[in-house]
Amino acid sequence: MKLSQKAQLCTLSPMRKFTPYAMAAEAAGKKIYKLNIGQPDIETPPEFFDAVRGFSQKVLAYANSQGTEVMLDAVVNYYKRIGVEYTKEDILITTGGSEALQILFLCILDEGCEVIVPEPFYSNYNTFIRAAGGVIRPLSTCPEEDYNYANREKLEALINEKTRAIAIINPQNPTGNVLTEQELRLIADVAKAHDLYLVCDEVYREFVYDSDEVQCAGKFRDVDDNVVIIDSVSKRFSACGARIGMMISRNKALMAEALKFCQGRLCTTTLEQVGAAALYSVGPEYFAKVRDEYRRRRDLCYEKLTAIPGVVCAKPMGAFYVMAKLPIDDADKFMKWMLTDFEDHGETVMCSPAAGFYATPGKGLNEIRIAYVLKEKDLARALDLLAMGIERYNNR
Amino acid sequence: MKLSQKAQLCTLSPMRKFTPYAMAAEAAGKKIYKLNIGQPDIETPPEFFDAVRGFSQKVLAYANSQGTEVMLDAVVNYYKRIGVEYTKEDILITTGGSEALQILFLCILDEGCEVIVPEPFYSNYNTFIRAAGGVIRPLSTCPEEDYNYANREKLEALINEKTRAIAIINPQNPTGNVLTEQELRLIADVAKAHDLYLVCDEVYREFVYDSDEVQCAGKFRDVDDNVVIIDSVSKRFSACGARIGMMISRNKALMAEALKFCQGRLCTTTLEQVGAAALYSVGPEYFAKVRDEYRRRRDLCYEKLTAIPGVVCAKPMGAFYVMAKLPIDDADKFMKWMLTDFEDHGETVMCSPAAGFYATPGKGLNEIRIAYVLKEKDLARALDLLAMGIERYNNR
Repeated sequence: MKLSQKAQLCTLSPMRKFTPYAMAAEAAGKKIYKLNIGQPDIETPPEFFDAVRGFSQKVLAYANSQGTEVMLDAVVNYYKRIGVEYTKEDILITTGGSEALQILFLCILDEGCEVIVPEPFYSNYNTFIRAAGGVIRPLSTCPEEDYNYANREKLEALINEKTRAIAIINPQNPTGNVLTEQELRLIADVAKAHDLYLVCDEVYREFVYDSDEVQCAGKFRDVDDNVVIIDSVSKRFSACGARIGMMISRNKALMAEALKFCQGRLCTTTLEQVGAAALYSVGPEYFAKVRDEYRRRRDLCYEKLTAIPGVVCAKPMGAFYVMAKLPIDDADKFMKWMLTDFEDHGETVMCSPAAGFYATPGKGLNEIRIAYVLKEKDLARALDLLAMGIERYNNR
Repeated sequence: MKLSQKAQLCTLSPMRKFTPYAMAAEAAGKKIYKLNIGQPDIETPPEFFDAVRGFSQKVLAYANSQGTEVMLDAVVNYYKRIGVEYTKEDILITTGGSEALQILFLCILDEGCEVIVPEPFYSNYNTFIRAAGGVIRPLSTCPEEDYNYANREKLEALINEKTRAIAIINPQNPTGNVLTEQELRLIADVAKAHDLYLVCDEVYREFVYDSDEVQCAGKFRDVDDNVVIIDSVSKRFSACGARIGMMISRNKALMAEALKFCQGRLCTTTLEQVGAAALYSVGPEYFAKVRDEYRRRRDLCYEKLTAIPGVVCAKPMGAFYVMAKLPIDDADKFMKWMLTDFEDHGETVMCSPAAGFYATPGKGLNEIRIAYVLKEKDLARALDLLAMGIERYNNR
């Protein structure tokens, strides 16, 4: 039985591939601090559950393919509040930001087309782009330069006749890099000059710790046809399990193609849209509180990490991840060992080995991504376990 | 800005492309009987909503990429009850049957690969197969032969070196064809002999009106590597808006590839899986009642349709659709006209023009698909409106 080339070019998620080992460890009674996926322990605003419980229709019917009116209105109003004018026609509600990315790449990529992506990147971009027949052309960044990628020369050196898009995550997963307005403008200028789509994954928009600026590429009105915003309620409202995201663009030709794929899969869940729309009613005090909480976690995480001998990392400015180079031979082996062989008082820690966050072969082999999504006490313990683990692993 | 070839080869859904006209008609106060999409008016079992309202976790977290344990258990038990042995490892919970099909075709199709599909077919197959770079090779069927396609000679005539799969919907959308066990076995034999995947979309499994047999290709254990079952709670439990489906196969290599795409999009909605698992607790009396209701609708629909002068159709044996050839020039024009120009006492009817259900150019131009998803009184009125509409359209 034949399998497709594109499936074989994909890999299991570095965030999730050790799930079987984790389940076995948990079944054996081990407690695991999970810093491997971006699953915050912050409570989902009760507005979500209240709205869902209040749903009184007797038939759980399909929604519109574009998204429900109430949900679209909620998104339009949210963008208005951050100073960006979108209309309902610019928005398609999707099953998480993940589906928005899948649909977008299906619309713009043919076999062999390239997308420029700063590296390291959220590893599932590889799956989404491969699924559409495309390839990632990585723009390498490093902790020594704070993972900066807003560099016209470096970007333009990667553009060729196969290039269709520049895709950035801002604030960035996994590096925590946050673009200034000038940097975002520079990248938009490159996209405009070369007639490329500029895919801006802004799902961590509010998670910025050293500035009050909230960036959105949708405010640059001279690149309406280039810019596509990927957004989601998952991180903003700690509602990952709702799987409600969106693809936003003023490029009408692109949105017309995307609607075909939206109609093909019929719709996004009706009930989750009811809940997600209600989430947008929470006020700015919610974001401020969450941001303060994550800033403390970020500070704690960075402090603890840099205190481990031999660890190299850059202080993240946004999102809730930090990349760290560890003084070990192989992060895959190490992480598996942490689940199967290591424990301290019946506890261990799980992070994501980072090779899957790179497209360049051989990169990231001794790096991990840490999601600082646990409360400070748990985070401190988790990082102590990591420090202990590194020492014991190297002396085993 | 360049758009992909594959997006341009897709079309808007024939079921949904007239939504803007319908919305305008409704805004102007017109009542529309909607026979265009398979959205039943049957109430969703309250078990769904009770389970969802009972969800008490404070964080709406990601689920496992494969699906929640509770949901997987519910599916395994359901299959056990219908006499088919599957384990949890054979099942991936997806966002509707739609996502199951998308993931499956990504796993098995490369650019230019072919899938044999009996025609007319559920039109979104075109979108799913195009998205994966593939092409539909249609096996033409007709009402005069009750849309039968279980024909070894005809199937084998379509197989070439590019063929990767035979994809059938049983009971069939849009024709209502239902395979006997012998017919299903014949198709499985062809798939086995030619080393092809046999994709069996069995989302209408319980909707069979002239037999008590409930078919599932999963019971043929000699074709474990070939058979992939596509299933969903949408139709079975009138829970279309939940978007919970599944891909089921004992082919371990295939399931390993599919898991990559499942991990890529992280998971299916957590809360909907809670509700969907509860749906599987409804007893056989539920299916019997629903089936009786649809049988009456089928009979009414067929009787009313065949009473319209010039209409050609075959009595559907299952699912809840009927294809009808109308005495008109063009079903697209006619259906648009029914929304924009026609009314009787402020009411009209909406069906799906059927050209999009064919891959062969020029076929289905004067055909429509009717979903008999409304209660008898509404259905009778809707079909009277259709009859009136045909007459007035031809005399306009």
